[in-house]
Amino acid sequence: MPEEPLVRPEVADMVGDWKTYVEAKLGFRNHWYPVRFSKEVDEGQIEVIEALGEKLLIKRIDGKVYSMRDRCLHRGVPLSRKPDCYTKDTITCWYHGFTYRFQTGELVNILAVPDSRLIGRRKVVTYPVIEAKGLIFVFLGDADLVHDLAKDVPPGFLDDDLMVLGKHRVVDSNWRLGAENGFDALHIFIHKDTTLRHFRTFNFPIGHTPLPGAVELVEAEDGPKGVLDDFAQHKPVWDGVIDGEIVVRGPRSAAVQGTSAAVGTSIWLPGVLKVESFPAPGMTQFEWYVPLDAGRHLYVQTIGKKVGSDEDRNAFANAFESTWKPHGLDGFNADDIWAREVTEPFYADDYGWVDEMLCEPDVTILEWRRLASRHGRGVQQPSDLR
Amino acid sequence: MPEEPLVRPEVADMVGDWKTYVEAKLGFRNHWYPVRFSKEVDEGQIEVIEALGEKLLIKRIDGKVYSMRDRCLHRGVPLSRKPDCYTKDTITCWYHGFTYRFQTGELVNILAVPDSRLIGRRKVVTYPVIEAKGLIFVFLGDADLVHDLAKDVPPGFLDDDLMVLGKHRVVDSNWRLGAENGFDALHIFIHKDTTLRHFRTFNFPIGHTPLPGAVELVEAEDGPKGVLDDFAQHKPVWDGVIDGEIVVRGPRSAAVQGTSAAVGTSIWLPGVLKVESFPAPGMTQFEWYVPLDAGRHLYVQTIGKKVGSDEDRNAFANAFESTWKPHGLDGFNADDIWAREVTEPFYADDYGWVDEMLCEPDVTILEWRRLASRHGRGVQQPSDLR
Amino acid sequence: MPEEPLVRPEVADMVGDWKTYVEAKLGFRNHWYPVRFSKEVDEGQIEVIEALGEKLLIKRIDGKVYSMRDRCLHRGVPLSRKPDCYTKDTITCWYHGFTYRFQTGELVNILAVPDSRLIGRRKVVTYPVIEAKGLIFVFLGDADLVHDLAKDVPPGFLDDDLMVLGKHRVVDSNWRLGAENGFDALHIFIHKDTTLRHFRTFNFPIGHTPLPGAVELVEAEDGPKGVLDDFAQHKPVWDGVIDGEIVVRGPRSAAVQGTSAAVGTSIWLPGVLKVESFPAPGMTQFEWYVPLDAGRHLYVQTIGKKVGSDEDRNAFANAFESTWKPHGLDGFNADDIWAREVTEPFYADDYGWVDEMLCEPDVTILEWRRLASRHGRGVQQPSDLR
Repeated sequence: MPEEPLVRPEVADMVGDWKTYVEAKLGFRNHWYPVRFSKEVDEGQIEVIEALGEKLLIKRIDGKVYSMRDRCLHRGVPLSRKPDCYTKDTITCWYHGFTYRFQTGELVNILAVPDSRLIGRRKVVTYPVIEAKGLIFVFLGDADLVHDLAKDVPPGFLDDDLMVLGKHRVVDSNWRLGAENGFDALHIFIHKDTTLRHFRTFNFPIGHTPLPGAVELVEAEDGPKGVLDDFAQHKPVWDGVIDGEIVVRGPRSAAVQGTSAAVGTSIWLPGVLKVESFPAPGMTQFEWYVPLDAGRHLYVQTIGKKVGSDEDRNAFANAFESTWKPHGLDGFNADDIWAREVTEPFYADDYGWVDEMLCEPDVTILEWRRLASRHGRGVQQPSDLR
Repeated sequence: MPEEPLVRPEVADMVGDWKTYVEAKLGFRNHWYPVRFSKEVDEGQIEVIEALGEKLLIKRIDGKVYSMRDRCLHRGVPLSRKPDCYTKDTITCWYHGFTYRFQTGELVNILAVPDSRLIGRRKVVTYPVIEAKGLIFVFLGDADLVHDLAKDVPPGFLDDDLMVLGKHRVVDSNWRLGAENGFDALHIFIHKDTTLRHFRTFNFPIGHTPLPGAVELVEAEDGPKGVLDDFAQHKPVWDGVIDGEIVVRGPRSAAVQGTSAAVGTSIWLPGVLKVESFPAPGMTQFEWYVPLDAGRHLYVQTIGKKVGSDEDRNAFANAFESTWKPHGLDGFNADDIWAREVTEPFYADDYGWVDEMLCEPDVTILEWRRLASRHGRGVQQPSDLR
Repeated sequence: MPEEPLVRPEVADMVGDWKTYVEAKLGFRNHWYPVRFSKEVDEGQIEVIEALGEKLLIKRIDGKVYSMRDRCLHRGVPLSRKPDCYTKDTITCWYHGFTYRFQTGELVNILAVPDSRLIGRRKVVTYPVIEAKGLIFVFLGDADLVHDLAKDVPPGFLDDDLMVLGKHRVVDSNWRLGAENGFDALHIFIHKDTTLRHFRTFNFPIGHTPLPGAVELVEAEDGPKGVLDDFAQHKPVWDGVIDGEIVVRGPRSAAVQGTSAAVGTSIWLPGVLKVESFPAPGMTQFEWYVPLDAGRHLYVQTIGKKVGSDEDRNAFANAFESTWKPHGLDGFNADDIWAREVTEPFYADDYGWVDEMLCEPDVTILEWRRLASRHGRGVQQPSDLR
């Protein structure tokens, strides 16, 4: 009797060239994922995090953050239940004194059995950690498959002069519903009443359809893999019509020409969105949908802005706190969050992937599913958690 | 890998001629079910209802009630999460503007993609709706199998001079445990302490066993299908005896001869009980056990009384509110409700159907199971919900 | 389609000579288990208890306690939902009047069907009950396999001059994690901060490893089966060392030589621990881990002390209430309880039994698993509950 599969094979078998995407219910392994902001983890501080179905500990030691599976090798208990850190570099299991070095995962002692032959011969799983742009990234995967962070973030995110601010929260949906909600050019309909328009000049259609050439695949060997959707090559829909009558109109300002909300969006492996000129011109929103388990993801929302001076930095920090965080990340995206959570039940038993009925502009979403299936570096499996 | 069966096949295979009944955990398809009282749905009002495992919307438009599956074709979200009704006849999905006509289910527009070729070519599932006797009935099944409501209600229910009043509530048990509890002549034991006797003269045995001829099957081609149990042909048990001593007596009044509680009961497809002369002479209780999902049913309780004048109608309405609703539907039937809910765990994993140990008078229940298996017009399957 | 196995067979198949132990998720059948203290069940009182996945009723009649499955034969409802006890010896089902004799389980009447041929021919399951040392023991198993209680309790527990006091509580872990936590000589590490040392002189190492000869198997045909671990033949560890530095020391008193906490522990089928000289010299702690269901056990904690006079008895009773119950059973063992509950998730899906990584002193636990597999008198199966 093999372990039950995480995903119904008969569903995965039905979707053709994006089968791997359907299988990646727990996310894609062997990629970099942001798990916290750097400022959330002070020197010596331990945090319990989740990612791809795993529970991990992260700790900052001498300035550098390390990550280790939060489970003792011996009887499988979480070390975090009562973290005994007798030395800076180690954590000792509260149950029998198994002691692990954070930097390597090595079992360096068993306090209750100091002469055990296991000592020095066993390791708990650890993962590489990098900090960039104020985020702590963990490489969830096999040590021999580690690659540059630059291959797992959208172009521009690592630019030297980009200042990044953000927040995160847990959303009760699978990570893919987060990614598709974000990249979906049509879901703009849900934002038609956004209060964000009180804070910027806003021309916001109720929908827009990609014209030929709007979608571009980025699959260069040595860079990030993503799908670009250029809104400048979209046909916007300004009026909603039912039975010949206009029933709803997208908000428009006489002061602006055309579609102003965003210049374009792009989605990148392992599940990160870039929205240009958003939440307002001169800014770029980058957001991650980090799989926590099959039914939840960590929504890591950031806004990047080019800054050239301390004055710039201070101005952006102030604007972020007073306007873009409360009215963009909290207000505007609140609608995205409930939309994902309400969509979750339809896809939770996998059948949604074959029972859905996509329409023409959803071709962008299909391109993303295919690209992810081609370039994802491994599907996280329940057996990876054991 | 096929979808897991809703019911354990090895259990259904063991029960012989009522296998279909065991399989009908979600109820029988292609029948009329009451879902609300007419007065609960005003013009223009939308209600979310459940039946046979489905979530439905009902709406009254120009006086007529329509019913539609509460799930957008596109990404499977419930339309009811934020019902956008831009026109009287339509509902628009809050997510991408898919717009459906209530009367037909037709996709009449996609506000965000007004030129989609799906428009006019796709339909969401709708079900026929009829109102009768103050109840809203929905035909849960295939359009080509619709039949007269008269075939799905007990004889007499649609009589012109019958006035019907009632209430409904959700009970946490499978619908079959509701039906069997109601039809079960023995369960009278549970009502031996009923306060209803303070409101009518009552001779109430603690049990009664059908004599030959008491049970009759009604299976005429063009009418409702049911099992009748004539209490006049039952042998009542007035005293409960243990080890030779009377330990409990059924309530009796010197003023009345014989069994007075009910002249007889009958149970009809798709799960509706008729109790004659109940809760008092001159009235008839009709009650439905509408499957909501595998573990819950909507208990629709009604009392019918023949009326010939407005005076009659007012008198019955007053008596219903002051006496028969609080002391009958609420008081007397409260014991039935907890009995069903307490029985649920034994049958929830299906094994109850073979592990139970029926006794002689339960033959009436077996007749019902067999009749339902013969005449049920289709077993609701999980695949019907997709 | 057979019923799903309670335990993953592929896991049980991997563990070799303790396969039966892995299968015994619901405990071992055909053994005596304590379920309540005698003083908790007065004459005529009914209690609902759980054991090995079953719900049982116990009642004291004319001084003797009887035990019967809490489920009516007819429709499977719990009799305890509304216990109708019309006579001292019987319980009548509230639903249809099925009446059972407590002493035999015999169906002595059906109040609503007094002439049913089932009467006198059917029995509900009953189990033998014995009271000893102030505990009510139930033999959960087949009547023809009943054996002396003395075969299911640790040696000494039934000694005439032993006075036993205790308490019980529900713990949210499988019973085996309770048993292994108790018997585990290494888990002493968790108690290093115990406040118990304020109430007795205490030399308490942070770990100790059995030397050759410490472990002894007791498998005589006609006695209890158990594993003894003699702490006098252990090598204690007083100091915990990481990277060459002492980071934690076991509490020691200059007044005492050597390890003082306990002389030794032993574990016995069907899951009962004996801890010598604990919680203080002159006492013995006996504790049971009675399986309730797959994820919970009843932790029955007792302390025994030899007494020779009423003065001795009163002194022990006072000391128990003022010191050993609050600071031993409640205080010291509180750490054991949370440790078991935190360990539960790793073993709940069975994989823990193969994914764990035992170390050298855990050989005592392996001996227990093997002994239980050899001598357990039957694995409780889901089919035993039907």
